[in-house]
Amino acid sequence: MKPVRIGLIGLGTVGGGTVNVLARNSEEIARRAGRQITVTHAAVRNLSGARICDVSGLELSTDAASVATHPDVDVVVELMGGTDEARDLVLQAIACGKHVVTANKALIALHGNEIFAAAQAHGVTVAFEAAVAGGIPIIKAIREGLAGNRIDWLAGIINGTGNFILTAMREQGRDFDDVLREAQALGYAESDPTFDVEGIDAAHKLAILGSIAFGMPLEFERLTIEGISAITPLDIEYAEELGYRIKHLGIARRRADGVELRVHPTLIPARCLLANVNGVMNAVLVQGDAVGATLYYGAGAGAEATASAVIADLVDIVRALTTDPGNRVPHLAFQPDALTDVAVLPSSEIESAYYLRMTVEDAPGVLASVARILADSGISIEAVVQKEPAHGATRVSLIMLTHRVREGLINDAIARIEASDYIENTIMRMRVETLDGA
Amino acid sequence: MKPVRIGLIGLGTVGGGTVNVLARNSEEIARRAGRQITVTHAAVRNLSGARICDVSGLELSTDAASVATHPDVDVVVELMGGTDEARDLVLQAIACGKHVVTANKALIALHGNEIFAAAQAHGVTVAFEAAVAGGIPIIKAIREGLAGNRIDWLAGIINGTGNFILTAMREQGRDFDDVLREAQALGYAESDPTFDVEGIDAAHKLAILGSIAFGMPLEFERLTIEGISAITPLDIEYAEELGYRIKHLGIARRRADGVELRVHPTLIPARCLLANVNGVMNAVLVQGDAVGATLYYGAGAGAEATASAVIADLVDIVRALTTDPGNRVPHLAFQPDALTDVAVLPSSEIESAYYLRMTVEDAPGVLASVARILADSGISIEAVVQKEPAHGATRVSLIMLTHRVREGLINDAIARIEASDYIENTIMRMRVETLDGA
Repeated sequence: MKPVRIGLIGLGTVGGGTVNVLARNSEEIARRAGRQITVTHAAVRNLSGARICDVSGLELSTDAASVATHPDVDVVVELMGGTDEARDLVLQAIACGKHVVTANKALIALHGNEIFAAAQAHGVTVAFEAAVAGGIPIIKAIREGLAGNRIDWLAGIINGTGNFILTAMREQGRDFDDVLREAQALGYAESDPTFDVEGIDAAHKLAILGSIAFGMPLEFERLTIEGISAITPLDIEYAEELGYRIKHLGIARRRADGVELRVHPTLIPARCLLANVNGVMNAVLVQGDAVGATLYYGAGAGAEATASAVIADLVDIVRALTTDPGNRVPHLAFQPDALTDVAVLPSSEIESAYYLRMTVEDAPGVLASVARILADSGISIEAVVQKEPAHGATRVSLIMLTHRVREGLINDAIARIEASDYIENTIMRMRVETLDGA
Repeated sequence: MKPVRIGLIGLGTVGGGTVNVLARNSEEIARRAGRQITVTHAAVRNLSGARICDVSGLELSTDAASVATHPDVDVVVELMGGTDEARDLVLQAIACGKHVVTANKALIALHGNEIFAAAQAHGVTVAFEAAVAGGIPIIKAIREGLAGNRIDWLAGIINGTGNFILTAMREQGRDFDDVLREAQALGYAESDPTFDVEGIDAAHKLAILGSIAFGMPLEFERLTIEGISAITPLDIEYAEELGYRIKHLGIARRRADGVELRVHPTLIPARCLLANVNGVMNAVLVQGDAVGATLYYGAGAGAEATASAVIADLVDIVRALTTDPGNRVPHLAFQPDALTDVAVLPSSEIESAYYLRMTVEDAPGVLASVARILADSGISIEAVVQKEPAHGATRVSLIMLTHRVREGLINDAIARIEASDYIENTIMRMRVETLDGA
């Protein structure tokens, strides 16, 4: 059979990695797919740039649209990043009846509903395994592997930069800014690290995971998002003493009254597998009603790990070329007409346990006052640790773990504690999840 | 569209669980698959037995062949176990042009080559996700999710009973027989536990994983298999002191001169995720050349976890109903005409590091003699621990870790040490793997 001809848009890290892996494993891949998969065209920013891959045999162009719509291209692989131009190009490729593979989480999170509708109208597939957790086949696992389940919740470490920072802070007792600078020097973090450390990148991925888990349209703008930049080595140490580790998690949880979609630093039991996922690695824990807890672990980024997911999508597309479009795996796991508009709960309604750390006067009655304010809000305390003041100091650290409570209530209680005259600072509050069933 | 009609053969734990999950999640599953999936027929041993599921609406029969070949059944699900009758029934169903789903690892490991050839000849699919690691979608991950990779090796905890026993031995310091009795009382182990504790069940699964990883026919009879019944609490304790945990692993490794397929107790670094998979849980670590290490974790057995995999296979089959048979995912991941006869290396050729434990006379020159015998075989020593003799005892435990060596060499050296007059017992030897890259 004729090779399937690929047009790549973007020949940077992931694009170059994809060319390299397709070349190196071409025989192995053809033995699986039953056909050769060959990159024939590539759109680049400039024709003479340095490449990590061999481009001989590739038709290079600076006109991305010409690749996206080229009559000799069967499948378009979008690896340019960004959302506006990428959206236009993907829609053009779809309009030309081409299947599309993308690693672009922002594109799918922000424009996925429009893109999938266009793909459906044109009978083509837009595959995006590489958009979430790099090389881990998590989209496939949830959309297909767990298709018999009602997914109750999932929780994932889906940003490698953030996990690298939290791991180094814990293992080496360093502070956030210090480790961030190292991550930047190593190329794990951008010079503007906002997307990674403030949770936006993870939220793009979580929006996608939530939709395929629960069968709902993408609703990125309704996620609750908190970053990790306020975490101190003290918090990590206190969490450890209480038997927890701090991870930046994306959590999607189904409730009777809607779904929670939230990205935030989270204390999780130190013994659980997710707490032991370190460095730049990613992992997603998925709780299905039939299967129970399953976990998927691997590299969340990197040229070849991401290429692995891109190529898996290409092989899937090749295999489904003769499949009636209505019988292919639906983009968001559920048939397009079976997606439901589930309410995404506002942050004030999100329920979890809490870790609170405050610096207070070392005086009689302070603990009683804090406890009274929490009790008045109906918040039960699970554990309290008061740290001995340093010699001569008149301030102490008070750490509390609460039982589960809606966020609106804890925020009110925190505001009232912060209004007291015995409190030194703003209160550090982080959510605590036991990931029961895992 | 008309529902897809399922004929179940076997209505025990997994069969009943499958009926229950299909009923409970029927709407969710239809929203994904685009069609209802309905159990219409079931073959049972006797019509009046106790059931864990509601059988109203099911046509029950004691004639399994009538279900396997029934004109009103679209897909046959074989959950009866055993290999002879199951093989006959599956071949009958295939001959009638029916797709088949099975959870039967022994059937696939022993008769898979014949069954897949028959399925190919009749243009149908035989799906077997539930045969390996229960609810974990590991077959899908390797066959599809990692299709861009050359798989270098994989290592899995793929028998829950054995992992339960080793976990309890470690956590509670109990001995093998004691925990085995508990496992039997809990229903985790059979009254004849041979299949689980001697590694045969794990070997069935490993044969399947090896074939789909490396693109070779099933060759169960050529596996190297060792059980866990000789492990003592002392071994677990010494391993722990050296920074390792003992797990019963199935390992498939590609080498230049063939592949290793082996099931045996293994010391692995205590820090790695696989070492922290406890109780009856399963996990498989897969090393691909592009993606690096990925890990898949979940319940390896149980009614509903296994049903989860069975139903995922059913949804896959429904989705591929309109796919040209030659374009479907090949049974063994590679196109049938692209499978290669790779040499499965005999146990003497398998290479790994070793843990050796021996009881020797507490006398000068003993350590030197043991070290000399190993050195004469070209075996390097990585670590030695000699345990202080109890007060008044004249015997001590000598524990050694070696560098990597072919098994033939270490066995020769062990025989020579055991022939010495200072040695008390047979030497306990276990393989050590660092699972590099993970």
